[in-house]
Amino acid sequence: MPKLLCIGEILVEMVAADVDQSWLEPATWHGPFPSGAPAILADQAALCGATVDLVGSVGADPFGEACLARLRRSGVGLEHVRVDDTGTTGVAFVRYSASGARSFVFHLPETASGRFRLDDPATALADVGLVHVMGSTAFSADAVAAIGRFVDDASARGVPVSFDPNLRPEMLRRPEHVAELRRILLGARVVLASEGELPALLGDASDAACAARLLGGAAQVVVVKRGAAGASLFEPGRPEAREPGVAVHEVDPTGAGDCFGGTFLALYLSGTDPTTALRYANLAAGLSVTQRGPMSGNRSLADLEAALRSPAPGSGRPSQSAGPSSGAL
Amino acid sequence: MPKLLCIGEILVEMVAADVDQSWLEPATWHGPFPSGAPAILADQAALCGATVDLVGSVGADPFGEACLARLRRSGVGLEHVRVDDTGTTGVAFVRYSASGARSFVFHLPETASGRFRLDDPATALADVGLVHVMGSTAFSADAVAAIGRFVDDASARGVPVSFDPNLRPEMLRRPEHVAELRRILLGARVVLASEGELPALLGDASDAACAARLLGGAAQVVVVKRGAAGASLFEPGRPEAREPGVAVHEVDPTGAGDCFGGTFLALYLSGTDPTTALRYANLAAGLSVTQRGPMSGNRSLADLEAALRSPAPGSGRPSQSAGPSSGAL
Repeated sequence: MPKLLCIGEILVEMVAADVDQSWLEPATWHGPFPSGAPAILADQAALCGATVDLVGSVGADPFGEACLARLRRSGVGLEHVRVDDTGTTGVAFVRYSASGARSFVFHLPETASGRFRLDDPATALADVGLVHVMGSTAFSADAVAAIGRFVDDASARGVPVSFDPNLRPEMLRRPEHVAELRRILLGARVVLASEGELPALLGDASDAACAARLLGGAAQVVVVKRGAAGASLFEPGRPEAREPGVAVHEVDPTGAGDCFGGTFLALYLSGTDPTTALRYANLAAGLSVTQRGPMSGNRSLADLEAALRSPAPGSGRPSQSAGPSSGAL
Repeated sequence: MPKLLCIGEILVEMVAADVDQSWLEPATWHGPFPSGAPAILADQAALCGATVDLVGSVGADPFGEACLARLRRSGVGLEHVRVDDTGTTGVAFVRYSASGARSFVFHLPETASGRFRLDDPATALADVGLVHVMGSTAFSADAVAAIGRFVDDASARGVPVSFDPNLRPEMLRRPEHVAELRRILLGARVVLASEGELPALLGDASDAACAARLLGGAAQVVVVKRGAAGASLFEPGRPEAREPGVAVHEVDPTGAGDCFGGTFLALYLSGTDPTTALRYANLAAGLSVTQRGPMSGNRSLADLEAALRSPAPGSGRPSQSAGPSSGAL
């Protein structure tokens, strides 16, 4: 199976125990949970059978160890992850409000986690079938430069690019970063976006209009993720394929979109048809929010197949579809 | 009363809920607790009636707000604290082991909290009676430079220096930082050290020998803090004065030495005789460990007087001494 190479932030997350918990008064937090959008995606891709390497950096501290131990256990290749003893592993403090909105305090750009780069593109990209980049990684000028170089190195070697805009509101204030994300988007073969992100980056009126534009360019597959409302797949010359949402009791939505991406890319790289990959990805994302911690809800392809065939009570997902053929996986 | 001016780190602390809690697996933490040795000391000095300003820096985020709100409430002057929107407020994760030892993951040197400096020494030092510096602040080359300049600015204006070595093991690996701390120690009028720190910095065989050497130089008062075993006071031409430990149920010892220092300096600056100041400081430090959070156990002079006169059940401290005369306070 062609290898997937992801780049970006590896950090830990501390999750507020209570909804609307105060930031200002001492309260209870749970963590450290291994996190970072590219790390969550890589973890889930590995659990779904992909050969996946991660390019990243952590501090020489227990939080970095926790991340690497988790990723190693899931089968993610860590050859291109540096342990940087000049800084600490990044930490994101996350709090949910009653509306479902999240707020963060991020220790990232200045930490060891913020200092990733691919040092040896010739070696690292030699046997790679797809590189994946996420907009969440554009958290500093250095990080934007690192992902831009990564994409250029891949393109120069004919390795196609997969991109998830994964926009953070604060990024939209940096026009030069947004321009670089738009450039990466326009060159990507696979696009995995959340609802509204493509219009935010491209200026077209709807996700569907953006998908059509992208499919007229470099893209072969465009997915629009709608959280609890499911997801859509756009391919050239085919009607939009829709997956409905998965009814679950949401505990912690962080990482669901990355779990979606990891599942989709693992299946896509294995040769599974995109419509089936969409179904698995949508299910994986839905199930992932039932556990606290960004990677805690990641699960293997076997688990997903089992859930599709005989859904657990409360998954809200009757066995509405057959799995991908074993041969394709 | 002459003003006290402290400099250094202001950060929040996250405290592991359980003894020997894993760093590597998700667990429960409590926080954010306002922290930073100079901040704890300033907080306690203000609670004990001192006029005290702090020189520091926090990020423009909720953790910085939490620190400033606490310090403001206690009466610490914050005119020289910058809110730096180019970084986050530092965080220290603290875990206790069954042996009582602490281990930390520190996000500090690279954060907004690490970028303090006194910009306007002429104004800031104009009405200051004592400046206080702590070795914990020597966590980066920039920070060491900032405290060195601070001490030089004070000395140039005839403002005496108070110093607490507050050594962190990792600092001893940086000889140039240790040399700067030694220089500050040798020039200090008031020295508040923990057991063993003076021999570590000066090379003499015992705390008492170091105290004698310091009192032969710039020092007028040397205190050696021994945690649960109490404290000693050394003054020129006087025998060592000892305070026994305070028998309490220890919940969280972090900050006890700083609470000691804040109490001692507040009373010292008010004109209280050092022996009485030692008694109050020793009691304040003892009582401070009964609550979780570095500043949570700080308390007012009135509370300390009440505790000295009619000790709370379980304080283990019979009313063995009278308080300082009201006139002196």
